[in-house]
Amino acid sequence: MPDLYHHPLDPQSRFIRLVLGEYGIEPNLIEERVHERRHDFLLMNPAGTTPVMLDEHGPPVPGAGIIAEYLDETRGLGMADRRLLPDHPLVRLEVRRLLDWFNAKFFAEVSEPLVREKVYRRYMKGEQGGGAPDMDAVRSARSNVRYHLRYIGYLIRARRWLGGDTLSYADLAAAAHLSCVDFLGDVPWAEDEGAKHWYARIKSRPSFRPLLADRMPGMMPSATYADLDF
Amino acid sequence: MPDLYHHPLDPQSRFIRLVLGEYGIEPNLIEERVHERRHDFLLMNPAGTTPVMLDEHGPPVPGAGIIAEYLDETRGLGMADRRLLPDHPLVRLEVRRLLDWFNAKFFAEVSEPLVREKVYRRYMKGEQGGGAPDMDAVRSARSNVRYHLRYIGYLIRARRWLGGDTLSYADLAAAAHLSCVDFLGDVPWAEDEGAKHWYARIKSRPSFRPLLADRMPGMMPSATYADLDF
Repeated sequence: MPDLYHHPLDPQSRFIRLVLGEYGIEPNLIEERVHERRHDFLLMNPAGTTPVMLDEHGPPVPGAGIIAEYLDETRGLGMADRRLLPDHPLVRLEVRRLLDWFNAKFFAEVSEPLVREKVYRRYMKGEQGGGAPDMDAVRSARSNVRYHLRYIGYLIRARRWLGGDTLSYADLAAAAHLSCVDFLGDVPWAEDEGAKHWYARIKSRPSFRPLLADRMPGMMPSATYADLDF
Repeated sequence: MPDLYHHPLDPQSRFIRLVLGEYGIEPNLIEERVHERRHDFLLMNPAGTTPVMLDEHGPPVPGAGIIAEYLDETRGLGMADRRLLPDHPLVRLEVRRLLDWFNAKFFAEVSEPLVREKVYRRYMKGEQGGGAPDMDAVRSARSNVRYHLRYIGYLIRARRWLGGDTLSYADLAAAAHLSCVDFLGDVPWAEDEGAKHWYARIKSRPSFRPLLADRMPGMMPSATYADLDF
């Protein structure tokens, strides 16, 4: 059972929780507040970011993209049709493109600013950057999420899953990021029906259940956050 | 011969040029000014970033990390000891960690702000964000480069190459980013002797020559940029 250093509303940590869930691996979850820059955590990941996975006997595996590649090489190969980074080089290319789209671009434009402003800054001291949310950053992220929803809708009208014929890292990354934004009530689901239906399919998977049960002290999730029929 | 859409001072494009050089592949270089948001380029890479590789008969391969994985799967497997993402899972993990360190962290903290402020903004129109450099961003990047040099020095005192016993993506990414900063005269080489000697080794490789010959209209590289004995 690997240790996973994570934060409940860090979208990249949620992506890895979904991946482990799909592969039937239950991690030992350890909450890390990265802004505290804990010495032992920085030794595991000098970049100071979550998630970090500690596999039995191995060195720390830091970062969502790197954990995904590591899990593919150590667990995915034997998964046949359920491999989340499918075998064919051109499908792998498309899945990695979308994985990067969500873990880098969606993160920078939507989920990171929303979680930072609306969640992390509540728990940070003044000298760590804590305080009231920067509403310009929040408004900008709320505007950006619209074109990302339309992009998901555009992809899913042509394919069964975001990366192709089978469920892949692309779906799990997109859903992980959206789930954080949904927790905060900032997904305008009416923007794209296709994207909404695709998310409903992911949300009903058993791997998603632990995410829907996440709660933060002093914060209520949006009314439909855990609702499978939203 | 693949097409490579790049910018001469984009560090991520330079990384792929080095990788192709090490594998003996000479790309057809096509300069792309991403801030112009050219329609046909956005069709190839909706994220709108360089590099993008167009392999014979295949779809576009967008982004340095994705091109690196694609080249490993299509070219690297047959390279034995010269494989730039070496075979062993734990070495692959460390090389990918460092690849991400330079392509994401060093990029965000050093090379992207310096190239944006000192190069791209010269060529951009006012409405694209062009104008005089933001000297706060430049100063912050010049300060950050110091701890990255010390980190390279720390790694190379314990290893033959940054990722382990053999030349890997880790070295080529680090050198690609540093080369852009060096072009601009912003690497304080006296900060770390080990890092300087490691860079001298990379700089003298045949794959590096095309980068040292790069020139930008109206800009002179720093005095020692192309000097192998800097």
